[in-house]
Amino acid sequence: MLKTLTEDGLDLLFRRARSHNGWLERPVGDDLLAQVYDLMKMGPTSVNSSPARFVFLRSEEAKRRLRPAISAGNIDKVMSAPVVAIIAYDLGFHDSLPQLFPHNPGIASLFVANPDLAESTAFRNGSLQGAYFMLAARALGLDCGPISGFDGAAVNREFFPDGKLKVNFLCNVGFGDYGKIFPRSPRLSFEQACSLL
Amino acid sequence: MLKTLTEDGLDLLFRRARSHNGWLERPVGDDLLAQVYDLMKMGPTSVNSSPARFVFLRSEEAKRRLRPAISAGNIDKVMSAPVVAIIAYDLGFHDSLPQLFPHNPGIASLFVANPDLAESTAFRNGSLQGAYFMLAARALGLDCGPISGFDGAAVNREFFPDGKLKVNFLCNVGFGDYGKIFPRSPRLSFEQACSLL
Repeated sequence: MLKTLTEDGLDLLFRRARSHNGWLERPVGDDLLAQVYDLMKMGPTSVNSSPARFVFLRSEEAKRRLRPAISAGNIDKVMSAPVVAIIAYDLGFHDSLPQLFPHNPGIASLFVANPDLAESTAFRNGSLQGAYFMLAARALGLDCGPISGFDGAAVNREFFPDGKLKVNFLCNVGFGDYGKIFPRSPRLSFEQACSLL
Repeated sequence: MLKTLTEDGLDLLFRRARSHNGWLERPVGDDLLAQVYDLMKMGPTSVNSSPARFVFLRSEEAKRRLRPAISAGNIDKVMSAPVVAIIAYDLGFHDSLPQLFPHNPGIASLFVANPDLAESTAFRNGSLQGAYFMLAARALGLDCGPISGFDGAAVNREFFPDGKLKVNFLCNVGFGDYGKIFPRSPRLSFEQACSLL
């Protein structure tokens, strides 16, 4: 078994990967989306809660339903992406704990009794899973363009009217056009972001 | 440039990687923690906000400060880990936007004017960065044991008394003992977690 990723692999996932704004005319098959899911689902979540839910918009018609919720500067990026993933989380994730955490399904009662804990658990772990999704997509050769500039309440009304799911963020998915990326922005130094005790 | 990760790489990051409960007697050097940070910092965040902050507890003394906040079932895992990372987020992340988002530093005013937006942005993106951290650690040969079972208010009082940083989750880091892992729990199927529109 491999002990560390190769330099090429580190480049693919982290160092050379970029958020994309423009897309090559190359479709993304449903089979590839399923492969991304089958990888990202293995990432860790609290009590294996796995609260993330994904709605993949592939058709023009589906993307048109999203369009009114997108801020002006993001509309072209979203409408031109081969796939737009609505990355959501399920506030009723604990209903699945008998399947997901079979050695202690009673832990679901913790979340039933404490909706604030359920919401923060869903948001935190659904976000972790959003990151697993993007890195799994990159690992399989796809590029991502995550988007936070949209009207979440409007997305929820249009796609999740029963109120159980909440949108977390959007992620355009496809094969990116490296001619349309922005220069890489600086990052915080280790000393700025980390401390050693 | 590599187009997709090798099967070995997918195993390392996703398919064979596991959350760990026990640790080999092999130390984790500060240089390796810095390498993990230098990879994970490249992952995307909204407006490059990079709100995650990491406190690495390596000494017995530092871990003893954490101990009273840990739930009983997690104490041994935490105290025996070579490094415990407190993964936090900075509610004042927007103070760094002139450095991080130099082409539009004025965007910081959005977050100053809207503390709820600042908090949700910090929590969401700090969680994405927590996931990048775990996958970067695995990519460099480390194992992780993320922990949510602790008293967050107690961790904040002890480590972040000025109230600007908030703990998100804890993550034990080291070289895992595969003799002490639990059986892999089931995951939701593609059809359960995803829909195609």
